[in-house]
Amino acid sequence: MRVKNYLEVKATQELPGVLKREVITAQDGAPNFKMRVFEVEPGGATPNHTHAWEHEVFVLAGEGMVVGEGGETPVAEGSVVFVAPDEPHCFINKGDEPLRFICLIPLPK
Amino acid sequence: MRVKNYLEVKATQELPGVLKREVITAQDGAPNFKMRVFEVEPGGATPNHTHAWEHEVFVLAGEGMVVGEGGETPVAEGSVVFVAPDEPHCFINKGDEPLRFICLIPLPK
Repeated sequence: MRVKNYLEVKATQELPGVLKREVITAQDGAPNFKMRVFEVEPGGATPNHTHAWEHEVFVLAGEGMVVGEGGETPVAEGSVVFVAPDEPHCFINKGDEPLRFICLIPLPK
Repeated sequence: MRVKNYLEVKATQELPGVLKREVITAQDGAPNFKMRVFEVEPGGATPNHTHAWEHEVFVLAGEGMVVGEGGETPVAEGSVVFVAPDEPHCFINKGDEPLRFICLIPLPK
């Protein structure tokens, strides 16, 4: 068992205005998927992009939009987002506070 | 893409004092793992148990203990817990508010 506070994990600047913490990875022994915590600055966004794997997201704080094939949908604390494999998507901070969310992806087999 | 608030998902009484919401499942199209949100009442706990799959947990609110092979470790908002496959574990609410956490598990292949 590994127990930590997510803030103990060193953040990396994934993109301008976007911090990433990889809080559960294969190095912890995770066999199937990994957990990351992202923080998007006010006015910031993740780039619209596509990949062959899914996202499972839980929004912890802040206010924003998730953009998918069907358009924009507002997200805030408690929002859950499933992004299907190969679906274009991005997250946009529309509020005055950081938009913080958990995002899980499968590990390579 | 599926977007919802986790509170829109019907809670089931997993055990006395333990509510479960399955917020991302195979029915949403998830191919590899599913997201659940648990709420343990003050004074409540999940039973100490073991299974062949891992848990990836993020604590949203409340104060409690996670118990593993190495003993008890306190958890609170922002705690991240990796429970390895086959490791005995339980979560105990030690506070006055619900202990709320996200818990992800792999889907059967």
